Amino acid sequence: MKRLDSCPRKDGFRMPAEFEEHAGTYIIWPERTDNWRNGAKPAQKVFTEVANTIGKYEPVTVVVSDRQYQNARGMLADYVRVVEMSNDDSWIRDCGATFVINDKGERRAVDWSFNAWGGLVDGLYFPWDKDDRIASKMCELEQSDRYRLDDFVLEGGSIHVDGEGTAMVTEECLLSEGRNPHLSKEEIEQHLKDYLNVDKVLWIHEGIYNDETNGHVDNMANFVKPGVVALAWTDDVNDPQYKRSSEALAYLESETDAKGRKIKVEKIYTPKPILISKEESEGVDAVDGTLPRVEGDRLAASYVNYYTGNGFVAVPVFNDPHDELAIKKLQELYPDRKIEPIYAREILLGGGNIHCITQQVPKIK
Amino acid sequence: MKRLDSCPRKDGFRMPAEFEEHAGTYIIWPERTDNWRNGAKPAQKVFTEVANTIGKYEPVTVVVSDRQYQNARGMLADYVRVVEMSNDDSWIRDCGATFVINDKGERRAVDWSFNAWGGLVDGLYFPWDKDDRIASKMCELEQSDRYRLDDFVLEGGSIHVDGEGTAMVTEECLLSEGRNPHLSKEEIEQHLKDYLNVDKVLWIHEGIYNDETNGHVDNMANFVKPGVVALAWTDDVNDPQYKRSSEALAYLESETDAKGRKIKVEKIYTPKPILISKEESEGVDAVDGTLPRVEGDRLAASYVNYYTGNGFVAVPVFNDPHDELAIKKLQELYPDRKIEPIYAREILLGGGNIHCITQQVPKIK
Repeated sequence: MKRLDSCPRKDGFRMPAEFEEHAGTYIIWPERTDNWRNGAKPAQKVFTEVANTIGKYEPVTVVVSDRQYQNARGMLADYVRVVEMSNDDSWIRDCGATFVINDKGERRAVDWSFNAWGGLVDGLYFPWDKDDRIASKMCELEQSDRYRLDDFVLEGGSIHVDGEGTAMVTEECLLSEGRNPHLSKEEIEQHLKDYLNVDKVLWIHEGIYNDETNGHVDNMANFVKPGVVALAWTDDVNDPQYKRSSEALAYLESETDAKGRKIKVEKIYTPKPILISKEESEGVDAVDGTLPRVEGDRLAASYVNYYTGNGFVAVPVFNDPHDELAIKKLQELYPDRKIEPIYAREILLGGGNIHCITQQVPKIK
Repeated sequence: MKRLDSCPRKDGFRMPAEFEEHAGTYIIWPERTDNWRNGAKPAQKVFTEVANTIGKYEPVTVVVSDRQYQNARGMLADYVRVVEMSNDDSWIRDCGATFVINDKGERRAVDWSFNAWGGLVDGLYFPWDKDDRIASKMCELEQSDRYRLDDFVLEGGSIHVDGEGTAMVTEECLLSEGRNPHLSKEEIEQHLKDYLNVDKVLWIHEGIYNDETNGHVDNMANFVKPGVVALAWTDDVNDPQYKRSSEALAYLESETDAKGRKIKVEKIYTPKPILISKEESEGVDAVDGTLPRVEGDRLAASYVNYYTGNGFVAVPVFNDPHDELAIKKLQELYPDRKIEPIYAREILLGGGNIHCITQQVPKIK
């Protein structure tokens, strides 16, 4: 497949919303023992559950290093496709390809530069070169030419689109020092407009408290459909999350989308604070240059980190009183999709959740 | 995809002949510097020519380690699919999947044990575990369940079939000490009957002189069509090849195939002896446990190591007076296919030729 020097906007391609129909989903198999406790075995079980669950609704490809190939193939359901792919960790939402489609039934991809959420400024591990090759390898498998941006760092989890001309991001992430400090906010916005083919960008100030991704939007807010945004919420004014969510609510309710619609915000209550336990901390290899997992640290838990697929929504739950509330609320917001709750503390311990470990491939006609 | 415990014969699957229609071809990118001279750069150029040439006729997938991924992607034509796959060397004919089909439009594969042409007895390198995983990874990409044989060693280059119930092998290879010494000739034949779904096996005594594969049939003889075999030949009675070819000729002309047809043999004259040069020898890393490439050693050159694809035959040539003779003869034997000669001394230096570095995926309806 080819590397393209143009941009999707110029060529008539757009990033479809996640709630549009998929051809499939990609997941990377977790294995690094300085991020996933106990040799990544507990995480592998949950990733397997996520892959097997999604695989009931749409084709799933799990990519995995040669070292873990046979183990992954053995654990995953027969209907999950398993393909070798070297990686630095398992966040394909962030390092994977962002697919774009046109109305002629063609698919291409945007291959952003990936630098492990901040490179040498505040990145989470080093090196990240294998992860940065993931998108181009996905493009070969999906037979999609790609727009490669050598000079623009972005993760897929830091953007959401409504498929009708609107993108949603956080300033905390996109304006961070570790990504594109050479560009102004306006220049960054222009990149989004050119490569996602959107006309308007909604800039939420901050994401979830203590989110190591510099506040990715996908843990904080999501488009349920055009004009409707699900927002992580707490009523607890003493929670540092309160200010973040309140600001986002006020901002979104004051804004309109690319089509001029006022934004309707739906609150999704977060679980109560979840802290890393001593046992969990001790199961992680201590390695220089990798973010340590310290006992007592608060995790960036949020139900908004759900994945919307063909006929279903896969939502992380935490054995928390708010689990039921989130499930009920999402069922109301997605009346035509089955809600698939998955106990996902193990993914959270690694620094993200179900949305972060998945990357959809949009269907073409 | 699933691992199957049955066998193709029982399930109504058969290995089609190479001259039947293909869905595509696989090739492994060469890189090991203890087999390919000058950092494998000359070989990579020729593999690129082979892949790009075949890609004009049928879909080609080149699989490649992560280390060489970007280099391979850059060198190969855009229409060649490039997929990461760890490997020990680049002989996918031998370590890859042997695909079988049925008359209901289904495809499966046989995943033989691979031990680098003789394991600890007289294998050519150690270890070979990555190569032994290639077949299962091809099966995932082609969405084919596989029959895995943990206790039976075989390389795809050691078998040919006519698609109508006949297989052709050499005793030199299949009865070698390094493969299945625990099995009798009759038991080995039964494995071929069960897993290729053939009724008759033709046992040529020996392959090409000094062939490091223990005389693979694919360097010595090939089915042009049912009832017709192309055989490597020399008239030089002083060439050690003479006795081998003469014995094979006498044997084949005395035999019938599974359908009771007498075998018609077509002679393909080999090039004159080709020896490794000093410069070629010096370009190869010297590593314990890998077959050394010694100046003056005779290479197992044969035009019969050609690949038959959709509408073409890719044939190795050696800048030898017999090149034209081989091309002319093959054009007579394959009147409906374009003959594509490729100067392939570099592949020969690594120990095989065009047939050895390709593995077809048969088309299903």
